[in-house]
Amino acid sequence: MIAKVTAMDKILEQALLYDFYGELLTEHQKEIYEQFVLDDLSLSEIAESEGISRQGVHDLVRRCQRALEGYEAKLHLVERFLTVKEKVAQIDRVLEEWEREKEEPEEIIERIRGISSAIIEEL
Amino acid sequence: MIAKVTAMDKILEQALLYDFYGELLTEHQKEIYEQFVLDDLSLSEIAESEGISRQGVHDLVRRCQRALEGYEAKLHLVERFLTVKEKVAQIDRVLEEWEREKEEPEEIIERIRGISSAIIEEL
Repeated sequence: MIAKVTAMDKILEQALLYDFYGELLTEHQKEIYEQFVLDDLSLSEIAESEGISRQGVHDLVRRCQRALEGYEAKLHLVERFLTVKEKVAQIDRVLEEWEREKEEPEEIIERIRGISSAIIEEL
Repeated sequence: MIAKVTAMDKILEQALLYDFYGELLTEHQKEIYEQFVLDDLSLSEIAESEGISRQGVHDLVRRCQRALEGYEAKLHLVERFLTVKEKVAQIDRVLEEWEREKEEPEEIIERIRGISSAIIEEL
Protein backbone atom coordinates (compact mmCIF):
# COMPACT_ATOMS: atom_id res chain seq x y z
CA MET A 1 0.00 0.00 0.00
CA ILE A 2 2.80 2.39 0.87
CA ALA A 3 4.45 1.64 -2.48
CA LYS A 4 1.18 2.48 -4.20
CA VAL A 5 0.80 5.79 -2.42
CA THR A 6 4.38 6.66 -3.31
CA ALA A 7 3.84 5.81 -6.97
CA MET A 8 0.69 7.98 -6.98
CA ASP A 9 2.57 10.83 -5.29
CA LYS A 10 5.25 10.57 -7.95
CA ILE A 11 2.65 10.81 -10.74
CA LEU A 12 0.98 13.81 -9.10
CA GLU A 13 4.34 15.47 -8.61
CA GLN A 14 5.25 14.95 -12.26
CA ALA A 15 1.90 16.32 -13.40
CA LEU A 16 2.35 19.36 -11.14
CA LEU A 17 5.87 20.01 -12.40
CA TYR A 18 4.58 19.70 -15.95
CA ASP A 19 1.74 22.08 -15.17
CA PHE A 20 4.22 24.72 -13.99
CA TYR A 21 7.19 24.32 -16.29
CA GLY A 22 5.87 22.27 -19.23
CA GLU A 23 5.79 25.31 -21.52
CA LEU A 24 9.58 25.42 -21.31
CA LEU A 25 9.86 22.04 -23.08
CA THR A 26 9.90 21.81 -26.87
CA GLU A 27 6.70 20.96 -28.75
CA HIS A 28 8.03 17.47 -29.49
CA GLN A 29 8.98 16.84 -25.85
CA LYS A 30 5.57 18.06 -24.71
CA GLU A 31 3.77 15.77 -27.14
CA ILE A 32 5.59 12.66 -25.91
CA TYR A 33 5.70 13.61 -22.24
CA GLU A 34 1.96 14.35 -22.07
CA GLN A 35 1.15 10.92 -23.40
CA PHE A 36 3.29 9.35 -20.70
CA VAL A 37 2.37 11.47 -17.66
CA LEU A 38 -1.10 12.82 -18.39
CA ASP A 39 -2.60 10.10 -20.61
CA ASP A 40 -0.76 7.34 -18.72
CA LEU A 41 0.26 5.46 -21.89
CA SER A 42 3.12 2.92 -21.69
CA LEU A 43 6.51 3.52 -23.29
CA SER A 44 5.72 0.83 -25.88
CA GLU A 45 2.36 2.36 -26.77
CA ILE A 46 3.94 5.79 -27.27
CA ALA A 47 6.84 4.27 -29.26
CA GLU A 48 4.37 2.60 -31.60
CA SER A 49 2.16 5.65 -32.16
CA GLU A 50 5.16 8.01 -32.63
CA GLY A 51 7.15 5.61 -34.80
CA ILE A 52 10.27 5.76 -32.59
CA SER A 53 11.99 3.11 -30.44
CA ARG A 54 10.84 2.30 -26.93
CA GLN A 55 14.33 3.28 -25.72
CA GLY A 56 14.00 6.59 -27.53
CA VAL A 57 10.75 7.36 -25.73
CA HIS A 58 12.30 6.27 -22.42
CA ASP A 59 15.28 8.61 -22.86
CA LEU A 60 13.11 11.54 -23.91
CA VAL A 61 10.80 11.09 -20.93
CA ARG A 62 13.78 10.94 -18.56
CA ARG A 63 15.24 14.06 -20.12
CA CYS A 64 11.94 15.90 -19.67
CA GLN A 65 11.67 14.80 -16.03
CA ARG A 66 15.20 15.99 -15.31
CA ALA A 67 14.55 19.31 -17.04
CA LEU A 68 11.32 19.88 -15.05
CA GLU A 69 12.99 18.88 -11.77
CA GLY A 70 15.88 21.18 -12.65
CA TYR A 71 13.52 24.15 -13.04
CA GLU A 72 11.90 23.38 -9.69
CA ALA A 73 15.30 23.04 -7.98
CA LYS A 74 16.15 26.53 -9.21
CA LEU A 75 12.80 28.33 -8.92
CA HIS A 76 10.87 26.42 -6.20
CA LEU A 77 7.58 27.66 -7.64
CA VAL A 78 5.63 24.44 -7.11
CA GLU A 79 6.77 24.42 -3.50
CA ARG A 80 5.74 28.06 -3.01
CA PHE A 81 2.35 27.52 -4.65
CA LEU A 82 1.63 24.46 -2.49
CA THR A 83 2.46 26.48 0.62
CA VAL A 84 0.10 29.28 -0.42
CA LYS A 85 -2.64 26.75 -1.21
CA GLU A 86 -2.30 25.19 2.25
CA LYS A 87 -2.51 28.61 3.88
CA VAL A 88 -5.66 29.53 1.96
CA ALA A 89 -7.14 26.21 3.15
CA GLN A 90 -6.24 27.32 6.70
CA ILE A 91 -8.35 30.46 6.21
CA ASP A 92 -11.29 28.26 5.26
CA ARG A 93 -10.78 26.09 8.33
CA VAL A 94 -10.70 29.14 10.60
CA LEU A 95 -14.01 30.30 9.10
CA GLU A 96 -15.60 26.87 9.56
CA GLU A 97 -14.46 26.68 13.15
CA TRP A 98 -15.92 30.09 13.74
CA GLU A 99 -19.31 29.09 12.35
CA ARG A 100 -19.30 26.11 14.71
CA GLU A 101 -17.98 27.74 17.85
CA LYS A 102 -18.93 31.41 17.46
CA GLU A 103 -15.70 32.75 18.90
CA GLU A 104 -15.09 36.46 19.33
CA PRO A 105 -14.79 38.21 15.95
CA GLU A 106 -11.62 39.97 17.14
CA GLU A 107 -9.93 36.61 17.60
CA ILE A 108 -10.93 35.47 14.11
CA ILE A 109 -9.77 38.70 12.49
CA GLU A 110 -6.42 38.33 14.16
CA ARG A 111 -6.00 34.73 13.03
CA ILE A 112 -6.99 35.43 9.43
CA ARG A 113 -4.65 38.43 9.33
CA GLY A 114 -1.81 36.26 10.58
CA ILE A 115 -2.42 33.75 7.79
CA SER A 116 -2.81 36.37 5.08
CA SER A 117 0.43 38.07 6.00
CA ALA A 118 2.13 34.67 5.93
CA ILE A 119 0.79 34.27 2.37
CA ILE A 120 2.19 37.66 1.35
CA GLU A 121 5.60 36.65 2.74
CA GLU A 122 5.48 33.61 0.50
CA LEU A 123 4.89 35.67 -2.66
CA MET B 1 5.59 62.89 -14.89
CA ILE B 2 3.88 60.09 -16.81
CA ALA B 3 7.19 59.19 -18.42
CA LYS B 4 8.77 58.95 -14.98
CA VAL B 5 6.11 56.62 -13.63
CA THR B 6 6.50 54.43 -16.70
CA ALA B 7 10.27 54.24 -16.24
CA MET B 8 9.78 53.28 -12.61
CA ASP B 9 7.20 50.63 -13.58
CA LYS B 10 9.69 49.24 -16.05
CA ILE B 11 12.38 48.97 -13.37
CA LEU B 12 9.97 47.30 -10.95
CA GLU B 13 8.83 44.90 -13.64
CA GLN B 14 12.42 43.97 -14.49
CA ALA B 15 13.24 43.43 -10.83
CA LEU B 16 10.15 41.24 -10.42
CA LEU B 17 10.97 39.17 -13.50
CA TYR B 18 14.50 38.77 -12.20
CA ASP B 19 13.17 37.73 -8.80
CA PHE B 20 11.11 34.95 -10.41
CA TYR B 21 13.28 33.70 -13.23
CA GLY B 22 16.76 35.06 -12.47
CA GLU B 23 18.01 31.64 -11.37
CA LEU B 24 17.58 30.44 -14.95
CA LEU B 25 20.28 32.87 -16.16
CA THR B 26 23.96 31.89 -16.07
CA GLU B 27 26.18 33.08 -13.20
CA HIS B 28 27.89 35.58 -15.51
CA GLN B 29 24.56 36.96 -16.78
CA LYS B 30 23.28 37.28 -13.21
CA GLU B 31 26.39 39.15 -12.10
CA ILE B 32 26.06 41.76 -14.85
CA TYR B 33 22.28 42.01 -14.83
CA GLU B 34 22.09 42.54 -11.07
CA GLN B 35 24.46 45.48 -11.30
CA PHE B 36 22.25 47.04 -13.95
CA VAL B 37 18.76 46.35 -12.55
CA LEU B 38 19.22 45.99 -8.81
CA ASP B 39 22.26 48.20 -8.12
CA ASP B 40 21.22 50.70 -10.81
CA LEU B 41 24.74 51.12 -12.21
CA SER B 42 25.18 52.58 -15.73
CA LEU B 43 26.34 50.49 -18.68
CA SER B 44 29.68 52.38 -18.63
CA GLU B 45 30.22 51.76 -14.93
CA ILE B 46 29.57 48.04 -15.35
CA ALA B 47 31.76 47.90 -18.46
CA GLU B 48 34.61 49.44 -16.53
CA SER B 49 34.34 47.22 -13.45
CA GLU B 50 33.92 44.05 -15.55
CA GLY B 51 36.60 44.91 -18.07
CA ILE B 52 34.30 44.49 -21.10
CA SER B 53 32.99 46.99 -23.65
CA ARG B 54 29.96 49.16 -23.00
CA GLN B 55 28.34 47.57 -26.06
CA GLY B 56 29.06 44.11 -24.63
CA VAL B 57 27.26 45.01 -21.40
CA HIS B 58 24.38 46.51 -23.38
CA ASP B 59 23.94 43.34 -25.47
CA LEU B 60 24.14 41.06 -22.46
CA VAL B 61 21.55 43.10 -20.53
CA ARG B 62 19.20 43.03 -23.54
CA ARG B 63 19.65 39.28 -23.89
CA CYS B 64 18.82 38.80 -20.20
CA GLN B 65 15.72 40.98 -20.47
CA ARG B 66 14.48 39.05 -23.48
CA ALA B 67 15.14 35.73 -21.75
CA LEU B 68 13.24 36.81 -18.61
CA GLU B 69 10.34 38.20 -20.65
CA GLY B 70 10.30 34.98 -22.64
CA TYR B 71 9.91 32.92 -19.45
CA GLU B 72 7.04 35.14 -18.30
CA ALA B 73 5.34 34.93 -21.71
CA LYS B 74 5.40 31.14 -21.37
CA LEU B 75 4.76 30.63 -17.65
CA HIS B 76 2.85 33.79 -16.53
CA LEU B 77 4.03 33.23 -12.98
CA VAL B 78 4.61 36.88 -12.12
CA GLU B 79 1.11 37.66 -13.36
CA ARG B 80 -0.40 34.86 -11.27
CA PHE B 81 1.51 35.88 -8.16
CA LEU B 82 0.42 39.51 -8.51
CA THR B 83 -3.21 38.40 -8.81
CA VAL B 84 -2.94 36.27 -5.67
CA LYS B 85 -1.26 39.13 -3.81
CA GLU B 86 -4.09 41.50 -4.76
CA LYS B 87 -6.68 38.98 -3.58
CA VAL B 88 -4.96 38.53 -0.23
CA ALA B 89 -4.99 42.32 0.11
CA GLN B 90 -8.75 42.14 -0.57
CA ILE B 91 -9.14 39.81 2.43
CA ASP B 92 -7.39 42.36 4.60
CA ARG B 93 -9.68 45.12 3.31
CA VAL B 94 -12.78 43.05 4.10
CA LEU B 95 -11.51 42.55 7.65
CA GLU B 96 -10.80 46.25 8.09
CA GLU B 97 -14.22 47.19 6.79
CA TRP B 98 -15.75 44.75 9.21
CA GLU B 99 -13.92 46.26 12.18
CA ARG B 100 -15.26 49.65 11.16
CA GLU B 101 -18.82 48.76 10.26
CA LYS B 102 -19.51 45.62 12.32
CA GLU B 103 -21.49 43.84 9.60
CA GLU B 104 -23.05 40.45 10.16
CA PRO B 105 -20.39 37.73 10.57
CA GLU B 106 -22.24 35.54 8.03
CA GLU B 107 -21.73 38.20 5.37
CA ILE B 108 -18.02 38.47 6.13
CA ILE B 109 -17.55 34.70 6.08
CA GLU B 110 -19.19 34.53 2.69
CA ARG B 111 -17.05 37.32 1.25
CA ILE B 112 -13.79 35.90 2.54
CA ARG B 113 -14.73 32.45 1.26
CA GLY B 114 -15.41 33.93 -2.17
CA ILE B 115 -11.97 35.52 -2.23
CA SER B 116 -10.17 32.43 -0.95
CA SER B 117 -11.75 30.19 -3.57
CA ALA B 118 -10.74 32.73 -6.23
CA ILE B 119 -7.17 32.41 -4.92
CA ILE B 120 -7.30 28.62 -5.16
CA GLU B 121 -8.49 28.92 -8.77
CA GLU B 122 -5.44 31.03 -9.50
CA LEU B 123 -3.00 28.39 -8.19
